[in-house]
Amino acid sequence: MSSHDDRELGLVSGGQDASTRPPVTATVINYGETHLDERVYARPEDLQGFTLRPAVTWISVDGVCDGDLIQAIGGALGIHPLTQEDIMNTRQRPKLEDYGDYLYVAVRMLSPDGDSEFRSEQVSLVLGADYVVSFQEQPGGTFERIQEHLRAGVGRLRIEGAGYLFYTLLDATVDDYFIVIEMFGERIEAIEDAVVAEPGPEILQSIYALKRSLIALRRSAWPLRDVVAGLERGDSPLIPGSTLVYLRDVYDHTIQVAETAETYREMMSGVLDIYLSSQSNRTNEIMKVLTIIATIFIPLTFITGFYGMNFVRASDLAHPGGYPSVFALMIAATGIMLLYFRKKDWI
Amino acid sequence: MSSHDDRELGLVSGGQDASTRPPVTATVINYGETHLDERVYARPEDLQGFTLRPAVTWISVDGVCDGDLIQAIGGALGIHPLTQEDIMNTRQRPKLEDYGDYLYVAVRMLSPDGDSEFRSEQVSLVLGADYVVSFQEQPGGTFERIQEHLRAGVGRLRIEGAGYLFYTLLDATVDDYFIVIEMFGERIEAIEDAVVAEPGPEILQSIYALKRSLIALRRSAWPLRDVVAGLERGDSPLIPGSTLVYLRDVYDHTIQVAETAETYREMMSGVLDIYLSSQSNRTNEIMKVLTIIATIFIPLTFITGFYGMNFVRASDLAHPGGYPSVFALMIAATGIMLLYFRKKDWI
Amino acid sequence: MSSHDDRELGLVSGGQDASTRPPVTATVINYGETHLDERVYARPEDLQGFTLRPAVTWISVDGVCDGDLIQAIGGALGIHPLTQEDIMNTRQRPKLEDYGDYLYVAVRMLSPDGDSEFRSEQVSLVLGADYVVSFQEQPGGTFERIQEHLRAGVGRLRIEGAGYLFYTLLDATVDDYFIVIEMFGERIEAIEDAVVAEPGPEILQSIYALKRSLIALRRSAWPLRDVVAGLERGDSPLIPGSTLVYLRDVYDHTIQVAETAETYREMMSGVLDIYLSSQSNRTNEIMKVLTIIATIFIPLTFITGFYGMNFVRASDLAHPGGYPSVFALMIAATGIMLLYFRKKDWI
Amino acid sequence: MSSHDDRELGLVSGGQDASTRPPVTATVINYGETHLDERVYARPEDLQGFTLRPAVTWISVDGVCDGDLIQAIGGALGIHPLTQEDIMNTRQRPKLEDYGDYLYVAVRMLSPDGDSEFRSEQVSLVLGADYVVSFQEQPGGTFERIQEHLRAGVGRLRIEGAGYLFYTLLDATVDDYFIVIEMFGERIEAIEDAVVAEPGPEILQSIYALKRSLIALRRSAWPLRDVVAGLERGDSPLIPGSTLVYLRDVYDHTIQVAETAETYREMMSGVLDIYLSSQSNRTNEIMKVLTIIATIFIPLTFITGFYGMNFVRASDLAHPGGYPSVFALMIAATGIMLLYFRKKDWI
Amino acid sequence: MSSHDDRELGLVSGGQDASTRPPVTATVINYGETHLDERVYARPEDLQGFTLRPAVTWISVDGVCDGDLIQAIGGALGIHPLTQEDIMNTRQRPKLEDYGDYLYVAVRMLSPDGDSEFRSEQVSLVLGADYVVSFQEQPGGTFERIQEHLRAGVGRLRIEGAGYLFYTLLDATVDDYFIVIEMFGERIEAIEDAVVAEPGPEILQSIYALKRSLIALRRSAWPLRDVVAGLERGDSPLIPGSTLVYLRDVYDHTIQVAETAETYREMMSGVLDIYLSSQSNRTNEIMKVLTIIATIFIPLTFITGFYGMNFVRASDLAHPGGYPSVFALMIAATGIMLLYFRKKDWI
Repeated sequence: MSSHDDRELGLVSGGQDASTRPPVTATVINYGETHLDERVYARPEDLQGFTLRPAVTWISVDGVCDGDLIQAIGGALGIHPLTQEDIMNTRQRPKLEDYGDYLYVAVRMLSPDGDSEFRSEQVSLVLGADYVVSFQEQPGGTFERIQEHLRAGVGRLRIEGAGYLFYTLLDATVDDYFIVIEMFGERIEAIEDAVVAEPGPEILQSIYALKRSLIALRRSAWPLRDVVAGLERGDSPLIPGSTLVYLRDVYDHTIQVAETAETYREMMSGVLDIYLSSQSNRTNEIMKVLTIIATIFIPLTFITGFYGMNFVRASDLAHPGGYPSVFALMIAATGIMLLYFRKKDWI
Repeated sequence: MSSHDDRELGLVSGGQDASTRPPVTATVINYGETHLDERVYARPEDLQGFTLRPAVTWISVDGVCDGDLIQAIGGALGIHPLTQEDIMNTRQRPKLEDYGDYLYVAVRMLSPDGDSEFRSEQVSLVLGADYVVSFQEQPGGTFERIQEHLRAGVGRLRIEGAGYLFYTLLDATVDDYFIVIEMFGERIEAIEDAVVAEPGPEILQSIYALKRSLIALRRSAWPLRDVVAGLERGDSPLIPGSTLVYLRDVYDHTIQVAETAETYREMMSGVLDIYLSSQSNRTNEIMKVLTIIATIFIPLTFITGFYGMNFVRASDLAHPGGYPSVFALMIAATGIMLLYFRKKDWI
Repeated sequence: MSSHDDRELGLVSGGQDASTRPPVTATVINYGETHLDERVYARPEDLQGFTLRPAVTWISVDGVCDGDLIQAIGGALGIHPLTQEDIMNTRQRPKLEDYGDYLYVAVRMLSPDGDSEFRSEQVSLVLGADYVVSFQEQPGGTFERIQEHLRAGVGRLRIEGAGYLFYTLLDATVDDYFIVIEMFGERIEAIEDAVVAEPGPEILQSIYALKRSLIALRRSAWPLRDVVAGLERGDSPLIPGSTLVYLRDVYDHTIQVAETAETYREMMSGVLDIYLSSQSNRTNEIMKVLTIIATIFIPLTFITGFYGMNFVRASDLAHPGGYPSVFALMIAATGIMLLYFRKKDWI
Repeated sequence: MSSHDDRELGLVSGGQDASTRPPVTATVINYGETHLDERVYARPEDLQGFTLRPAVTWISVDGVCDGDLIQAIGGALGIHPLTQEDIMNTRQRPKLEDYGDYLYVAVRMLSPDGDSEFRSEQVSLVLGADYVVSFQEQPGGTFERIQEHLRAGVGRLRIEGAGYLFYTLLDATVDDYFIVIEMFGERIEAIEDAVVAEPGPEILQSIYALKRSLIALRRSAWPLRDVVAGLERGDSPLIPGSTLVYLRDVYDHTIQVAETAETYREMMSGVLDIYLSSQSNRTNEIMKVLTIIATIFIPLTFITGFYGMNFVRASDLAHPGGYPSVFALMIAATGIMLLYFRKKDWI
Repeated sequence: MSSHDDRELGLVSGGQDASTRPPVTATVINYGETHLDERVYARPEDLQGFTLRPAVTWISVDGVCDGDLIQAIGGALGIHPLTQEDIMNTRQRPKLEDYGDYLYVAVRMLSPDGDSEFRSEQVSLVLGADYVVSFQEQPGGTFERIQEHLRAGVGRLRIEGAGYLFYTLLDATVDDYFIVIEMFGERIEAIEDAVVAEPGPEILQSIYALKRSLIALRRSAWPLRDVVAGLERGDSPLIPGSTLVYLRDVYDHTIQVAETAETYREMMSGVLDIYLSSQSNRTNEIMKVLTIIATIFIPLTFITGFYGMNFVRASDLAHPGGYPSVFALMIAATGIMLLYFRKKDWI
């Protein structure tokens, strides 16, 4: 029914051209306190007859453009067709849906991209009784590191259930937001310095680009907060109580991200005020130079014009003291002007 | 009692002149998993003795200006006179009303109209136990496509009940919002480019027109969200639980529409800031040219005036080195000015 | 206790000078499905011994400055002294108070007054088991039309109880808001056109006056919405369930009024932005004319000054080609300037 | 524990220098329907052995700097030490605290002070079963008038209990807000007139001072609203039901004060917009004068310069028609300029 | 799991370089009504076998960079590893967490640092049944004073339980906010005076710095308010009812801090408006000087130019009255200009 899967909302964008996309693969990791099996599937038909084994299973899927593979996994685990659609639709608003048998969470994973932008891809997590399925648009990134931790057996990951793995994946996703936040912090400081040092019109472009990115960040962060808040309420038996206390921590982080984005937006308004005011200052300065020059020389030029008039019998032209006294008059006029400007604090 | 049916609120407007209006028709589609009957009624009296047959009935009415036809349908299905009034009053705020026997929903259907505007018409949906009545101001559009799907028997539409048909109509209406959203996204990008490239006063008109349209979009989108939220709560037995999960999806889309409209509004403010600042930049640039020219030539003109004075015995005029040294003085004055402007970063 | 009855809050104002006020009168209409009695009282003492008769009684009071009459009615119907005070204090915030035996509602009735202003008067409604008392500051207006409907016996008014009459009065009051809204809509369009066509300083006055009126409108509309919401909740047995569905309609209208007022306020900000920007444009245009004229003629004047110097042996003055070449120099300088301005897009 | 009693928050300030402070006195009024006893205490030791007598007792304390007196009263009536601290700390945020045996209310009493400022002092009210203790920073004011009413036995004050006295004091305090509101209303109108008539820089100071005062007013009014709302909920048995209906009235007044303060703030923004725009208008007007003068005379001066050049054989200088035709040229140039300015609507 | 412990959010910052940090020490104070034991631990291994003794124990830890010591204390008291992580992560958002056995509170302690900035360090408080553990980043400050009070045995601290000590520490932390608030109040007044007296561009820097600090203050104050509100609700049995009434007082203070920060932000906007408007005033003033000088002298210079033309037979040059009448013409032109400027109120 949803026919706008491929709509571009213009703000957050991820992925690459289809031509350069790596093939879709599903890495299935079955682990317990003492064992870890790992298999990689690339073709939907390989998944036929797939069944969950005891202990915890993590199916990590890289790429969401292969509907057949997702359908195969979804069929094997009993995932609702609507959820399958949501997984493939990478323009979702972050959301949490409780289907009873499983929880579906869609969030956005961020990574810096250039100075004041970030790339964002959709991450879908499905948490069942003893399995987690994760869907990324691109391979690699944070989840790869968690796979390595799992293989190495460090931390509590191996001795806890699927709920803890689910928390770990969500926490890693939220932690990546801080990298983007940090990048923005540095960028804001750079813009602040630039505004004070050399405020050119290109700064406005930077401010606007950053504001746009902050709007996009907020668009990802606020619903993320709601998703984690929904999980932390503990309504679902799929997340054990011992894991809830960790989710409370993730929740605090999402609030911190959202509030920092707001704070940065306010700081950008302040920077914009300074920029606009410094522009106004420049106008004033230019005006002052013009006014000083014009105000000094216009009367002087009048004096020269006066004595340039061709009145034949203008007797003071022939007067021997005429030339020096005109000179004195000009110096006096200039002096009065300079004193006036000094009083006005212009020079 | 409602005497402001024909009031123009100035913002959202649909329909055409009465003279060009197509006649009002009611298409009655009765369908089940294995059959589909279709009849078209244009005159109220044809509907006399109309009764619902088993399975699902969809009465699709194009045009709402014929009160008699609406009354005939309303009478046959037991629709409250107030609902009938609401159907005919095409300036309703989107709303959901639960009359027990049936649900009444009024929403606005959008379609792009030019570069930064959209047309909006009111769509009324009445959901009964085994029927849906839909009222459009204009024939055609999204609902026509659903009729074709129904006739072709594709999808789950034929095997589900009236609640699912109701969801399908609502979902199609909401999906059309994304087309308008997309149009706005492109328009904003075009304005952004124009502001940077050649910021003329007509851009302000474009920004204002787009802001106005975004205000109107928000006016449609926010109450739409409330309507779908009300449906999704599942208070009414007319919508089966299996359909509620789909409504949750529609609800997510309405939030996405509303949030994107907000985001666009914020982006327009940013564009306006750039525009105003670029205007201020232009003033500065003009000022700079004036100041540079005036500041260089005013002292030079003073010098020429000085030596244009008619003092008879001004001995340096007769001095052979006078002319070259005045020339040198002028070049020196110009050079000092140019160095000063270079230091000020003006040239 | 309330000693600020006569305080002027400066925003909403109604009534006329005491000297031109018509006398206070109470029209008592007792009606049922088959009968209608009507009597007019002007003096409190006429009301002595007044008792309610069976069927519905509507006491419509025009003018609230005669405390004795209000006290007489209040005494006969058992209305609390505080309510009587509230009726006479015409600077009330719209409010709903449930005294058990009766409901007291104070709202503001609007009517357009000039181009961008409106007059507002307080309407008090008291709903008892089988009576409604309405208090207006001025006779006539919407309630007069309802009296005529009642006398003519059109509509459902005669066959329904006091609750329906109460709804009818409230609905008529809210409907009058749309007239003011419509007036504002036309005024905004007029200002929009004026801002584009000939933005003079008097437009700012218009914008400010309209903004002030919109603030006042909102001040009336938002509490009105709360009043109707309170009635629609259906806590009071004085309003039968069959009337509640109509109040839901009134509630929708109050939301529409409040939202339209908000929308208009936003549109006024947009208009203000255009106005301020067009002012800035005018400054730029004036600057451009000055700069073009000055920049072309200042160098030319310098040239004339140069050849106006009184150096005796300036040989090129005597040179036959001097005069034409100076002429050529001036034309060249002007041409270069004009090309520069063309490149800058100034001319 | 609270060590910031004497902190100056810079916004709301009351009281006088300690040296000019009148001595702290406690007026104890014991009254019933038929009797009224009054005694004044100035020294804490006089209060030893103080016990409440039957009927209602009002202890009205003027001045809160004498901790011993407050402690003596507090000890006699069983007032918690924290409440005693709160009474002495005159920088409290308005608040309501229910200690079971008594209610403690701290609000701010306002009185106009100059054109756009107001003085504010803290009033503490303690309501017990059959007593009210009121603490003012300064003697006199509204409470004095209530004492006179009480002595005179007018109104219902003598026949009601302590709850009604408590309401009366609160109502009188809130009523004083309207005096300040009214002062602000007049001040805003004066500023509006001044902005239109003669917008000088000192108006901005006035606007800013008024804004500051409005911020301070809101700071007093919003928590006051919460305090009265808390009382009106009727959770405490100390306020009888018959008094609650009066508190609902006080609550309406507090909303009205808070909303009017908001409205005034919005109006001040509008006035500021007008002021800033009128400044921009003035710049435009000055620019226009400069541009008109310069644009007319610069070309003329060029012409005079042209014919002032010392080319010996410039034949047209000697031509008899030369002088008149230059004159005609100048008049033509001026005329073209004037027509151009007329077209531009500058003159 | 939290890998962003050391992330710098750029806004609030405390602590010093590791090289200059004093060693981490834990001061353990065990006290009751009649006794007080005190021991200082600096090495984690000293804490081995540490057990709580009867009566109240306060463990005051200065410095949070030594994970082993915190782990040793946490292990002895049964503090969750997540809480231990939170204590070491000094970039926490203020928060309250109830672990059943103990309450964990993280707040920020402020101290002024320069004119318009403040230092902020994280304070963690753990409240158990009969102990409080406090963690500061730096030794000294407010908690030191409370230790001295405790040793001296003044106040109610010695006779109350751990809950009261917990309240005392929180109250002292909140009281420190008022010092920062007071500093901001003084700074705002200084900026206000400077804006009126001599508005230079460096004021904008001050305004922006202060705004930034106010944003940071709000970021600390609002969640602090939530923390204290959570405590004051009284859900935890660790805080006895007699202490709850004191927490209500702390809560009032946190609201006061948060509201004052908001008020200051609004005042800063007002100051910014004045600054920007005074800049605009300066531009106007400069323009006026330029326009007056130019408008007076440009026509005069034209007159001198006119009579400087070399027309041979210009008869009025030779006329004896020519020179005086030109003089008169110039004086008249100047007089008219001056009258015009006087009318315009420019001089």
